[in-house]
Amino acid sequence: MIDVAIIGHGYWGPNLARCFAAENAAVRWICDVDPARLRAAACMHPQAKLTTSARDVFHDAGTDAVVVVTPLESHYRLGMEALRSGKHLLLEKPLAARSGQAARLCDEAAKRNLVLMVGHTFVYHPAVERIRAIIAAGELGEICYYDAVRINLGLVRQDVDVFWDLAIHDLSIIDRVLPYAPCAVSAHGISHFHGGRINTGYLTLRFAENLIAHVHSNWLAPVKTRRTLIGGSRKMIVLDELEPSEKIKIYDCGVTVADTAENIYKKLYDYRVGDMFAPYVELTEPLRREAAHFLKCIETKAAPTTDGAAGLKLVRILEAAEKSLRAGGRYVELHGS
Amino acid sequence: MIDVAIIGHGYWGPNLARCFAAENAAVRWICDVDPARLRAAACMHPQAKLTTSARDVFHDAGTDAVVVVTPLESHYRLGMEALRSGKHLLLEKPLAARSGQAARLCDEAAKRNLVLMVGHTFVYHPAVERIRAIIAAGELGEICYYDAVRINLGLVRQDVDVFWDLAIHDLSIIDRVLPYAPCAVSAHGISHFHGGRINTGYLTLRFAENLIAHVHSNWLAPVKTRRTLIGGSRKMIVLDELEPSEKIKIYDCGVTVADTAENIYKKLYDYRVGDMFAPYVELTEPLRREAAHFLKCIETKAAPTTDGAAGLKLVRILEAAEKSLRAGGRYVELHGS
Amino acid sequence: MIDVAIIGHGYWGPNLARCFAAENAAVRWICDVDPARLRAAACMHPQAKLTTSARDVFHDAGTDAVVVVTPLESHYRLGMEALRSGKHLLLEKPLAARSGQAARLCDEAAKRNLVLMVGHTFVYHPAVERIRAIIAAGELGEICYYDAVRINLGLVRQDVDVFWDLAIHDLSIIDRVLPYAPCAVSAHGISHFHGGRINTGYLTLRFAENLIAHVHSNWLAPVKTRRTLIGGSRKMIVLDELEPSEKIKIYDCGVTVADTAENIYKKLYDYRVGDMFAPYVELTEPLRREAAHFLKCIETKAAPTTDGAAGLKLVRILEAAEKSLRAGGRYVELHGS
Amino acid sequence: MIDVAIIGHGYWGPNLARCFAAENAAVRWICDVDPARLRAAACMHPQAKLTTSARDVFHDAGTDAVVVVTPLESHYRLGMEALRSGKHLLLEKPLAARSGQAARLCDEAAKRNLVLMVGHTFVYHPAVERIRAIIAAGELGEICYYDAVRINLGLVRQDVDVFWDLAIHDLSIIDRVLPYAPCAVSAHGISHFHGGRINTGYLTLRFAENLIAHVHSNWLAPVKTRRTLIGGSRKMIVLDELEPSEKIKIYDCGVTVADTAENIYKKLYDYRVGDMFAPYVELTEPLRREAAHFLKCIETKAAPTTDGAAGLKLVRILEAAEKSLRAGGRYVELHGS
Repeated sequence: MIDVAIIGHGYWGPNLARCFAAENAAVRWICDVDPARLRAAACMHPQAKLTTSARDVFHDAGTDAVVVVTPLESHYRLGMEALRSGKHLLLEKPLAARSGQAARLCDEAAKRNLVLMVGHTFVYHPAVERIRAIIAAGELGEICYYDAVRINLGLVRQDVDVFWDLAIHDLSIIDRVLPYAPCAVSAHGISHFHGGRINTGYLTLRFAENLIAHVHSNWLAPVKTRRTLIGGSRKMIVLDELEPSEKIKIYDCGVTVADTAENIYKKLYDYRVGDMFAPYVELTEPLRREAAHFLKCIETKAAPTTDGAAGLKLVRILEAAEKSLRAGGRYVELHGS
Repeated sequence: MIDVAIIGHGYWGPNLARCFAAENAAVRWICDVDPARLRAAACMHPQAKLTTSARDVFHDAGTDAVVVVTPLESHYRLGMEALRSGKHLLLEKPLAARSGQAARLCDEAAKRNLVLMVGHTFVYHPAVERIRAIIAAGELGEICYYDAVRINLGLVRQDVDVFWDLAIHDLSIIDRVLPYAPCAVSAHGISHFHGGRINTGYLTLRFAENLIAHVHSNWLAPVKTRRTLIGGSRKMIVLDELEPSEKIKIYDCGVTVADTAENIYKKLYDYRVGDMFAPYVELTEPLRREAAHFLKCIETKAAPTTDGAAGLKLVRILEAAEKSLRAGGRYVELHGS
Repeated sequence: MIDVAIIGHGYWGPNLARCFAAENAAVRWICDVDPARLRAAACMHPQAKLTTSARDVFHDAGTDAVVVVTPLESHYRLGMEALRSGKHLLLEKPLAARSGQAARLCDEAAKRNLVLMVGHTFVYHPAVERIRAIIAAGELGEICYYDAVRINLGLVRQDVDVFWDLAIHDLSIIDRVLPYAPCAVSAHGISHFHGGRINTGYLTLRFAENLIAHVHSNWLAPVKTRRTLIGGSRKMIVLDELEPSEKIKIYDCGVTVADTAENIYKKLYDYRVGDMFAPYVELTEPLRREAAHFLKCIETKAAPTTDGAAGLKLVRILEAAEKSLRAGGRYVELHGS
Repeated sequence: MIDVAIIGHGYWGPNLARCFAAENAAVRWICDVDPARLRAAACMHPQAKLTTSARDVFHDAGTDAVVVVTPLESHYRLGMEALRSGKHLLLEKPLAARSGQAARLCDEAAKRNLVLMVGHTFVYHPAVERIRAIIAAGELGEICYYDAVRINLGLVRQDVDVFWDLAIHDLSIIDRVLPYAPCAVSAHGISHFHGGRINTGYLTLRFAENLIAHVHSNWLAPVKTRRTLIGGSRKMIVLDELEPSEKIKIYDCGVTVADTAENIYKKLYDYRVGDMFAPYVELTEPLRREAAHFLKCIETKAAPTTDGAAGLKLVRILEAAEKSLRAGGRYVELHGS
């Protein structure tokens, strides 16, 4: 049995603790700076030791792995201490606030032969797995575009741009399902609050292949939307995370090019739509699959699907987006890891 | 009674002919290069003269106004001839293929004291009129963003980028409902067909005010979407053109800024949503209102809502978007008319 | 070429005239009591003779078939005259106001070897054809129920109950797609207007098989709904006539019976839902297919899919529903034709 | 502080225990026949005593109130024992399996001056409260009909008809929001499983007033639907429980009667739809409001909104529905309590 310590038991930490317990890990420590949160944890995990000091966790030889679920600014410090204490590490996304920090975390984990995983939870969503398989099988033909909208009336955070909060989900899905990696990013956005953090923004990703990806992130939208379109030359996919049962729809549709002026006028509103198929997607909780994957990687010494390198890649895109924002939206190149 | 000539009786022309007839104009001429189309016109407008030569129209002293509903490339030539013949002119959108041409049309109309109107039909949609009134009354508070999605599986045109076909609708609505004018445009897009015309693209408009506008245009989408969000500091609007009855929804909602780290975690998924109101929008056909407005402007010598200047403004934005596309998406300034 | 006369050129007649013309019938006569309507017809069908007297049609040896599109109360009289004049007959639905009249029309047509067809247009809808094929292939397993909702804010008619206006569509679909015939009908409803005609009502159909069918008809609903559920032991169908593209959805789902009290509590909210498939349905206009079918039956002497017998069957159900309404909703038996 | 005992800690009991704890009651006992469930309870309610015998609860002088959340067949026995032990009683719905039992529970509570409340949770839903207020204020005008659809692919229960599981929710809402009481009920339904319990059925309620209510209950539907329409002469309401934010929509619409045959044809598809208003409904959990209400009634000696009489009324309707089912759907009178 793997002994896990949860550092950070605020909004999201309890879910991770629950999932690790459900996956038969021993939740050995729960650590939070707020004693009131620890008391809440005591009920759910009566066997866990409680502490307000992460040092207790790092010094404990019986702890195999550390799960860091704290605000972004402490990711690097806590993650690095965990690795230096010889613990396997699951860090909540984004991996770190700067790519330099993310790279050092990767190096440290590699040097010590420890598992380093990032909590890109959507990658473990059965619907995303299914889309990856559909694309890998070539069902879509040539991929033409990827368009994601992730908007709602949420809390405007002041520590990061909206991309670090919302777009990171889309970037992690893009990284998982597309067979190509973006080579440059352009960002536009606007801030309406003190601190100047972008609350409404758009990312465009350029690829070496003839493909465009675009992400709309917005904390000020009156209607919640979580919709991704993936257009291919043969088929197209709509992923709607808010649909209770038909999350993925695969459209057997395409387009004919009009080659005469006559056709342009005659067929302007002509649609060629074929069958639509919505495959059943199992309802397994992605976070439980994430926890199980982390545990399995520890046991088998395998690299996680969302390893440090994947986490670093996304931090680099987010950093490049910041640079593009400052440069009026021009494309900023992404240099490979 | 105003005598109107329709030049171009293909896909869209018959609708304009029908609307002018319904608004009690005399449809005096129907002109099309294709005799088969003229035969079809004869039934609906038995009193109209038919011709394959626009010259017949221009030489006819009894014709007061000309309506040009031809492919974009002939707009300038036919429009200019009409004006030089002393006819009032309604030109289908976009006004012209280049801004220089558009400007010359404006000058010619001004010089001759003729009405020049562009067929930005959405401006005459009762829902758009209503949104304009809501914004003008200050109901939204400060306007934060404007986001439009106009996508479907349509015919891929080879003569123009998708922006000239789809985004022009959104640009005309933006021009009508926002109290501000954009000062620069950035465009991203991709082409998957011969000829290299953009079929999937995104426009971002920059304003001197703290506001962003963004338009998604796509001919390759598996689902038809026509949705515009307008976010304000006090209220927000959703315009869904595909909704059969509730096209406009006004959300009485807003956002609280979290000022402590504690709040960030506690309220991450907290929504503040108030009442929603969907005002009744009369079902008058926008095209009929457009026709009526043109006739009224001729009678009263008033400038149309969508006059040449409005048409020129949009052509300039579309041209700037082309320039931005060639320049890798950087912002291209829009100089005022 | 078959020469057709249209009797009744009000709301629906022009559509039938257009469809017969499109299907290469000769629209020889258009007859309406209102001369203004005839003038409107002249434009669309310049070759047609116009008359305000149906007698002109019946006396014309050159007319092969008559299409009656008049209010229900004149169906019998005009239909019978048409048959007695030796004309093939397409009667708008319902076939007649009373089953006795409907039966006499059937007898007359049979005696004279003329085609008698009723305009149950939905039977010619490609989506209905597809559902019929799916059921005929046994895809649904045992059919458990049929539930139709056809409601909207429409005009409250005073000449008939809402069932004669709306439910007749559902009854015609049931008659076409189900392999079983109902043996009794129960009706509930209410009237809120002068004349006492039911404006909101419910029909329940009993079958010899273990199957129930239910129809909700309502002229006073704030939202338009056109949704039919067909539940089978293996698969289930949802037909939503208002969906622009995915009208038919086939759900690969089923139900497990809990056999222990334990299960009842554990699985109360458990769903077993499998893949969903929305087959492409061609967009051919049902009315054109109806017109084409009528013409073909005349040519081939075949019995129409919606022949007099089908029309009589539905009138008998509607009559039985009236009887059930008067009897407080008790089941009224339907005796076979 | 009121000391509460929860009897039954299966699927629903833990929610009630949580809500009472949140409303500052002391959860003194948790009782379940299954020791495993008690162990689960221990964590959430560490201060609660655990037992597999309800007798322990009834004999405990420190227990003020008992909450019975067991299968229907034990409601009467456990409820009666609780009352005889002098405990206030909250019984899960339906109040009892037979109306005689329900009546005896009411009598016992009245005799002992104890609070008897039934868990008709929807009555405590803020959306239902709002609808009640709208109707009470006369906003709808004359109420014309009430139509509820509550269907999904759920577990087919063998102990009760679907009406006892699903329609009871609608009956409790009807009882709460309508100013009238039904005087007779007609039921139709069908069973496809061993045991013969109805899994798909329809209730029609007759009123002395010119109003009809109808309820569709179905465990075998491929799509989950929770939609209620309430039609009035001035306004109409749609309640969609599955809408994330706009659960209630109020339509300012009505109907014009056509008085001429001409109108019937001209306006057949004409809609008169006005503004729509979706009032904000607070997201308070109905079950917490139910728990708070029970506690307040104990303190203030007030009769609960859903008291024994309300519970008895619904059991009588469900019994009458069973009788109607056996009698082929004929109306069965409901005699007042």
